Amino acid sequence: MGASQTASKPTYIGIDGGGSKCRASIYTEDLVLLGTGVAGRANPLHGLEQAFQSIEESVQLALADANLKPEGAAELIAGAGLAGVNVPSLFEKMAAWQHPFKAMYLTSDLHTACIGAHEGEDGAVIITGTGSCGYAHVGEETLCLGGHGFALGDKGSGAWLGLKAAEHVLLSLDGFAPETQLTPVLMAQFGASDTTAIVEKLAGKSSSVYATLARSVLECAAAGDKVALNIVTEGAEYISQMARALLAVNPPRFSMIGGLAEPLQPWLDKDIAEAIAPTLAPPEVGAALFAKHSHDDRH
Amino acid sequence: MGASQTASKPTYIGIDGGGSKCRASIYTEDLVLLGTGVAGRANPLHGLEQAFQSIEESVQLALADANLKPEGAAELIAGAGLAGVNVPSLFEKMAAWQHPFKAMYLTSDLHTACIGAHEGEDGAVIITGTGSCGYAHVGEETLCLGGHGFALGDKGSGAWLGLKAAEHVLLSLDGFAPETQLTPVLMAQFGASDTTAIVEKLAGKSSSVYATLARSVLECAAAGDKVALNIVTEGAEYISQMARALLAVNPPRFSMIGGLAEPLQPWLDKDIAEAIAPTLAPPEVGAALFAKHSHDDRH
Repeated sequence: MGASQTASKPTYIGIDGGGSKCRASIYTEDLVLLGTGVAGRANPLHGLEQAFQSIEESVQLALADANLKPEGAAELIAGAGLAGVNVPSLFEKMAAWQHPFKAMYLTSDLHTACIGAHEGEDGAVIITGTGSCGYAHVGEETLCLGGHGFALGDKGSGAWLGLKAAEHVLLSLDGFAPETQLTPVLMAQFGASDTTAIVEKLAGKSSSVYATLARSVLECAAAGDKVALNIVTEGAEYISQMARALLAVNPPRFSMIGGLAEPLQPWLDKDIAEAIAPTLAPPEVGAALFAKHSHDDRH
Repeated sequence: MGASQTASKPTYIGIDGGGSKCRASIYTEDLVLLGTGVAGRANPLHGLEQAFQSIEESVQLALADANLKPEGAAELIAGAGLAGVNVPSLFEKMAAWQHPFKAMYLTSDLHTACIGAHEGEDGAVIITGTGSCGYAHVGEETLCLGGHGFALGDKGSGAWLGLKAAEHVLLSLDGFAPETQLTPVLMAQFGASDTTAIVEKLAGKSSSVYATLARSVLECAAAGDKVALNIVTEGAEYISQMARALLAVNPPRFSMIGGLAEPLQPWLDKDIAEAIAPTLAPPEVGAALFAKHSHDDRH
C-alpha cells in the first residue's frame, strides 16, 4: 500500500482519545485496517496541548505502521472521538485546531464507541475503564449519562474503585475505620508502610494511577473482603442503574466496553448482565465510520 | 522601627503556609507584631516553586508592612509551618531551599497551629478549613491524624463538603439520586444550568474552589435538606471521631481552627463541642515561637 492508492480512493483514520491513551487506526474505504498507532492520553479536559500532541503522535505511528509517509496525514479523512468534548468550550477549541488532515470530524469518544460497538446501527453502550459513562443513540434520540470525570463522578470506574479503596485504607490506618485484608493488599501494591507513603504515591496523581488499584479491589471483593465488597457493590449498582436508564430508550443492542466491562459483569444485576451483547467493532472503527458518514454527507 | 533595631535584637518571622494562602508575620523578641503579609497558596505538595514564591511574596509584603527594607529578610529568624511537609521527601526539598533568611526552621502547619493555639504549651488542635487534620503534642508524644489531602481524605473539610455535594448534584441531574433543594442552590451558585456546566466549573480545580461550596451545603443542612444533612452529619462525625482520638492522649487544652471550626461546631458530638477551648494565638505566632525556641536551642 502506498501513497498512490491514497490519492485515488479515500483513506480514513479513526481516532479514539481518552483519559489514558489515544489510539489511531487507518482504514481503506472498505474498512480494511492499514495501520495503528497508540500514544498518551488525549482528553482535552486535562490539557488541550497534550491532546493535540497525543493525537499527532498516534497518527504518525499509524502512518508508519501503514507504510505511509508522514505527509500522508494530509490525505486522510479523520474521525476523532474524544473524551471531554461534550463540554462545549472544549469542543470549540478542538474543532479550531489546525489539524494535519484533509478533513476532521469531531465527536465524543462515547459516540464513536457506540457507532463501533453496533457497526453504525442504533444502540447503547456503557464504557467502564479508567472512567465510566453511558450513551444511547436511537433514531433521533441520544442520551448521555455520567462521565463527569474523576473525582467528581465516574462511579463504578477503575479510578473510582481505586479512590474509594485508598480513602478507606487511609481511614483504617488512622484508626477511623475497620482494617480488612484490603489494607495490607493496597499497601503491598504501593510498597508503602504508612499513610504518608500512600499519600506520596497518590496525591495529585491522575485518574489512571488510581485505576491501577481496581484489580486488587475486585480481587478482595471476590475473596469476600467486606470493605471491598461494599465498594464494588456500590459501583456495580450505579452501572446497573445507568444500564437501566439507557435500556429505557429501547436501543436494539446494548454493549459494555473498557477494561472493567468484563470484571464488573458478575456484580451487575442479572437482567442487565444478560442484556449485554458483544461489541461488533472497536471505537477506532466507529470513529472511521463516523468520518466516512460525515464526509459523505458533505460531499 | 528600622533596620537599626533588627541589627541589635533578633526579629522573628512566622510563616503559615496552607492550601489556600500563605501568611507571614514579623515579630519582635517579645512577640510584638511589626507587620503582616498574605500571598497565594504554599503547599509544596501542589508545587514546590509556587510554595517558594508564595512564601517570598508574603515575606516581602510583611517587610513592607513593618517599614523594613526588602533586604531585611536576611536579618529575620524564620519559622515556617507548611502543609505537606509531613511527607518526608517534601520536607527535604523545602529544607534544601536557598531561603532569604538568617535562619529557617521548618515544621508542619499543624505543629505551628498547635503551638499558637496553646501559646507554646502542650495541647491538641483540629484544623477544618479547606482541608481537615488533627494534631496533639503532649510531653514527648505527638499524634497526627487525617490531613491526607483532597480528594483522598480531608473528610469534614470545606473541600470535602463541596465535593460530596457536587457529586450528589450531578447524580441527581442524571436521575440516579433524589433531587433536593441542594441541587438548585449549587446550580445557582455556579450559574450552571446542566451537568456539563457544573463539570466545566469544577473539573481539575483545586480544593479551594470546592471549598467555596461549603457554606451553601451547611445552610441547606441547617434548613433540613436531607442530602446536605447526610453530608454534613458524616463530615462532623469524622471530626468528632478525630477529636476523641486526640483527647485520648490527654492534652491539657483542645482547640479548633479554620474557617469551618465555628460553623461545624453545632454538628459535633456535644461532649466534643464542650471540650473546645479558644485559641490563644494565631498559627503565625506559633511559627514565630517555634523559630525562637528552635533558634535558642541551637545558639
